[in-house]
Amino acid sequence: MDPMTIRVGVIGTGNIGTAHARSLAREVSGSSVVAVFDVARERAEEVASDIGARVLPTAQAVIEADNVDAVVIASPDHLHAEQALAGLAAGKPMMLEKPLAPTLEQAREVMDAEVAVGKRLIMLGFMRRFDPGYMAMKRSLTDGAVGEALVVHNVHRNAYAPYGLDSALSLTNSAVHEVDINRWLLGEDYSWVQVLSGKPGPDVPAGQQDPLLITFRTTSGVLVTIEMFMTARYGYEVTCQVVGSDGILDMGDGTFVTRTTSRLRGQDIPELWLGRFGEAYRSELQAWIDSIRGESGPVGASTWDGYAAAVSSLAAIDALTSNEAVGIELPHRPALYI
Amino acid sequence: MDPMTIRVGVIGTGNIGTAHARSLAREVSGSSVVAVFDVARERAEEVASDIGARVLPTAQAVIEADNVDAVVIASPDHLHAEQALAGLAAGKPMMLEKPLAPTLEQAREVMDAEVAVGKRLIMLGFMRRFDPGYMAMKRSLTDGAVGEALVVHNVHRNAYAPYGLDSALSLTNSAVHEVDINRWLLGEDYSWVQVLSGKPGPDVPAGQQDPLLITFRTTSGVLVTIEMFMTARYGYEVTCQVVGSDGILDMGDGTFVTRTTSRLRGQDIPELWLGRFGEAYRSELQAWIDSIRGESGPVGASTWDGYAAAVSSLAAIDALTSNEAVGIELPHRPALYI
Amino acid sequence: MDPMTIRVGVIGTGNIGTAHARSLAREVSGSSVVAVFDVARERAEEVASDIGARVLPTAQAVIEADNVDAVVIASPDHLHAEQALAGLAAGKPMMLEKPLAPTLEQAREVMDAEVAVGKRLIMLGFMRRFDPGYMAMKRSLTDGAVGEALVVHNVHRNAYAPYGLDSALSLTNSAVHEVDINRWLLGEDYSWVQVLSGKPGPDVPAGQQDPLLITFRTTSGVLVTIEMFMTARYGYEVTCQVVGSDGILDMGDGTFVTRTTSRLRGQDIPELWLGRFGEAYRSELQAWIDSIRGESGPVGASTWDGYAAAVSSLAAIDALTSNEAVGIELPHRPALYI
Amino acid sequence: MDPMTIRVGVIGTGNIGTAHARSLAREVSGSSVVAVFDVARERAEEVASDIGARVLPTAQAVIEADNVDAVVIASPDHLHAEQALAGLAAGKPMMLEKPLAPTLEQAREVMDAEVAVGKRLIMLGFMRRFDPGYMAMKRSLTDGAVGEALVVHNVHRNAYAPYGLDSALSLTNSAVHEVDINRWLLGEDYSWVQVLSGKPGPDVPAGQQDPLLITFRTTSGVLVTIEMFMTARYGYEVTCQVVGSDGILDMGDGTFVTRTTSRLRGQDIPELWLGRFGEAYRSELQAWIDSIRGESGPVGASTWDGYAAAVSSLAAIDALTSNEAVGIELPHRPALYI
Repeated sequence: MDPMTIRVGVIGTGNIGTAHARSLAREVSGSSVVAVFDVARERAEEVASDIGARVLPTAQAVIEADNVDAVVIASPDHLHAEQALAGLAAGKPMMLEKPLAPTLEQAREVMDAEVAVGKRLIMLGFMRRFDPGYMAMKRSLTDGAVGEALVVHNVHRNAYAPYGLDSALSLTNSAVHEVDINRWLLGEDYSWVQVLSGKPGPDVPAGQQDPLLITFRTTSGVLVTIEMFMTARYGYEVTCQVVGSDGILDMGDGTFVTRTTSRLRGQDIPELWLGRFGEAYRSELQAWIDSIRGESGPVGASTWDGYAAAVSSLAAIDALTSNEAVGIELPHRPALYI
Repeated sequence: MDPMTIRVGVIGTGNIGTAHARSLAREVSGSSVVAVFDVARERAEEVASDIGARVLPTAQAVIEADNVDAVVIASPDHLHAEQALAGLAAGKPMMLEKPLAPTLEQAREVMDAEVAVGKRLIMLGFMRRFDPGYMAMKRSLTDGAVGEALVVHNVHRNAYAPYGLDSALSLTNSAVHEVDINRWLLGEDYSWVQVLSGKPGPDVPAGQQDPLLITFRTTSGVLVTIEMFMTARYGYEVTCQVVGSDGILDMGDGTFVTRTTSRLRGQDIPELWLGRFGEAYRSELQAWIDSIRGESGPVGASTWDGYAAAVSSLAAIDALTSNEAVGIELPHRPALYI
Repeated sequence: MDPMTIRVGVIGTGNIGTAHARSLAREVSGSSVVAVFDVARERAEEVASDIGARVLPTAQAVIEADNVDAVVIASPDHLHAEQALAGLAAGKPMMLEKPLAPTLEQAREVMDAEVAVGKRLIMLGFMRRFDPGYMAMKRSLTDGAVGEALVVHNVHRNAYAPYGLDSALSLTNSAVHEVDINRWLLGEDYSWVQVLSGKPGPDVPAGQQDPLLITFRTTSGVLVTIEMFMTARYGYEVTCQVVGSDGILDMGDGTFVTRTTSRLRGQDIPELWLGRFGEAYRSELQAWIDSIRGESGPVGASTWDGYAAAVSSLAAIDALTSNEAVGIELPHRPALYI
Repeated sequence: MDPMTIRVGVIGTGNIGTAHARSLAREVSGSSVVAVFDVARERAEEVASDIGARVLPTAQAVIEADNVDAVVIASPDHLHAEQALAGLAAGKPMMLEKPLAPTLEQAREVMDAEVAVGKRLIMLGFMRRFDPGYMAMKRSLTDGAVGEALVVHNVHRNAYAPYGLDSALSLTNSAVHEVDINRWLLGEDYSWVQVLSGKPGPDVPAGQQDPLLITFRTTSGVLVTIEMFMTARYGYEVTCQVVGSDGILDMGDGTFVTRTTSRLRGQDIPELWLGRFGEAYRSELQAWIDSIRGESGPVGASTWDGYAAAVSSLAAIDALTSNEAVGIELPHRPALYI
């Protein structure tokens, strides 16, 4: 076995876990996938046979397997904390899909455990940090091209909510991407949030709100707006505009082809997010593997970033529920994450 | 004299009054300018001699002149109400620059007077209703191209505040354009407004806020966001995006030329608004003259629209000052405006 | 009658003549239409009654009418020369739709007659010189923004050929717009032309060629390419790209609205050219009227420009027919046109 | 050693060879680089030490090394044929940078040798076939989105010619990319070519021509135009427009960020091609490695494609030199390449 090859175990072979497993086996340099687990054993078998891995009977077995150097956790949200704790106990590097955990208590428990280990073993799956679009935005912002950021406008639209619309979940599972990426872009935490809902779209069930207009204020006063529209019908789209003191940065979608037919010049909009963020997923995994191979220090979002995102998106739920602006306060940041 | 030619008197020969006078004399079909007045008599002489009009000694003289069929009022804001009342008394059609009046009392007085006359004599100078961009947006929205409007995002940025930054004035004199155009686009009034201010730009004097994020809610629940940034440095820009139940409408700026030089592909941004809205000003005046010549009923924004805009933008000032959301209620709409 | 109002007679009330008549009556400042003629008398009556003009029995009657100050000639191509000669004899300013004449002999006869009169009375209807897009291109080029022009790429596509496809006519009636506008942009004449035809589109009848790739070389060596595609099906589109020594200028279409629906972000393409060049037609007429009123010297394309365009587009027909490149030589330019 | 890892030897560590070596070592899944050679030994040492490979004393040693499974040939053009023949003799899969060879005789010799081996061992480095832009163009064309291709317009501009401008070399080394990619897009060979040169840019030395307008005609009659501008100063840019019977396909550059500052809204243009085609290079290598690992049949451009490109670009040199259109005829295509 090439000592440079990181042997990965994958927990969860749903859409995203399967995509990660295939990417690690076929696209990412320096990794192989040796073990997979899913409660849906048939699905796990299928993925394993496709990429030459073994199916193990439990998540714990994947985490503990001797030939597993690192673990991808792509299980349902409520299992994230438990499996992350097991991974920490085993001392293995993990790529943990977001969110860190569905409750602040669990999120805190994982963070405390990692701090106790004293080593950053967890990379949170905020893949947008590896998207060429956001990376170019960050580069331009850091270069000072538009001066100091004063406002950031974000739009996040989905064609439909695949598992039914749940406004609270749309904050913690979808808007959480904006929560993290704006923290990363600005290098600042949030101190305040409000959520406005207006006229509901035609696909919105009673008791739910969509679209939502979320506004965060950072500690230095930057306003971050997020339009979250989970039932936008027309397709999947994510935009970001930084309003700086000297100019504006706009993130497009990197589409290459413009097609003109029947009185219309147009560009395709994807139906789902994979079309937009496929390259980000691959780069994220490559960066993760490289960091495990020692070619860089920890990369991507840390457990602290996951914790801060959880605090912020849960505050947004409070704001939505209470119909009031809500203050946000983070605990002291552990030295491990500085 | 051609009986079809409307002879116009122009009150106020500042930037906008001069532009109107020249356009009526040279670009608009069916009009001539016969009289002008300005307190700066020299300036008035200059404009008058350029277009073959006479200078009259007072605004009242312009309004009452026998050979003046219609009046353009482009004087300072605080004189709008007084001159509009004089015009109503004289029974002459007026193109009155926005705002209708700086106070609600004065605005109400003008509206009541027009109702008493029983005839719509005033067109408010909300020229964006004649801009090809907003007109195309309205047409697409009305055609149902994107379903029902749910949210509208607006941006209004100026390179600098020519007379110094006054956040309240930026609401009543600048954002009032968005206040009117969104009412017109949606065909609805506002019931609620809030104003957020965050990190001030570097050109903002103490005690002022800029940029501002204004959010209106219409009676049916549509959310209308307006980013107002009076010291944006990079140039003048106005954008509008309608988020519909079935899709999105985006208004560009109609720029024709893309220039690629020195590692950059780019399009010019104007420094001031005239470059963006020159065609709107001309079309507005043409439509006004045509309506006076009887080729259409009243066009453009009515005194009622000016009143509604005043109520709404003054509510925004309350919201800014109090740092609280503010409800908006309009009085009963007079039959004259239905 | 206002002495400043130019009273126009319109010969030909087909699509373009009618559009001109209406624009002169309603949109253009300083003009009225007093007389119209068309062989289809009913059509002439309809237009005349719409704008308050009189129908005259012949083109000659329009030209000679005492109350006609200036004449628009929008008759079939083969009558252009004869009517232009009559207008010159009557000493009246004319706006003559392109082409100047279908044969070089006729074109020459008109030019010689105007030279004999010694006064520029004819403006050729090359309206693109008044289009905001081409005007902005010319301004940028003259400003030196992209250095010296080396190549110009043009595209001219029609959804369909309304009267059946005739490749020779597509050169003299459609491509002649590019012939003129590139001469104007570059300020140079052509010395050489070739025409390539390749795979015909599905709507091309036997014996005709479409699309065509035309290449002119100017006297200084600039290459001007023109893709002429008369049966492009998808819509009407005109583009222009100047390749300069220091950069590139691209002319867009000034569209304002982008509409995103059903997985597609798009912009409307018009079916016909009026949608693209409506503003150019209006500005052209306004400039013409202004020049007659003495507010400027002669404007727009001269008879010489029409003659040069005829020589060049007829050379392109030779090149198409002979399948060989063809040299182009212009006679000495009369002093009247310098 | 993981049996699935392809051990690559790299011949030539200039810019492109070094980029390939690093990509195979770090980005491509399933490959490692074990040996490198360059006449500039110091440079080879540097690359080797960076990626953990050994430096071998000759190209032949790399080709013959027992632990080298496959070879990248990125040496100077005149060595391509000789090294490719050696690789064929050794029976090793090769990624051979374009062009196949500088002369037709050498190109033919390599192709004949591969045919004699009876197995496709050579992939030519026409990386654009793996570019997301061209791949999307091909997909749209194949889907019938715009009907049948009738004309293709290409632009290929460089900021400057790094090693001095040589018009013939610009055809065989730069325009050859368009030669190949249009053959691939259309699935057709060329039968005819002409090259026009006009006014030279300011950086063009005496005796050279730039820009050049190249036109190919395919066997079915499609016209393929290529503007080749090697001293365009403003930056590196490649565009492609397919004119179909039912519409148009335009390839953009996939740029994500638009930056608006100082009266200008703009997008960065790269100085060199790597910025535009970085992803294509990586995907090409990954596809090559995958095909060697047996996950697909031969991929990318074959020796036949390289031969056809050589015939076509050498015909373009004839056309440039003779100032005449030149017919193109390919020999019978060997069965190996069907």
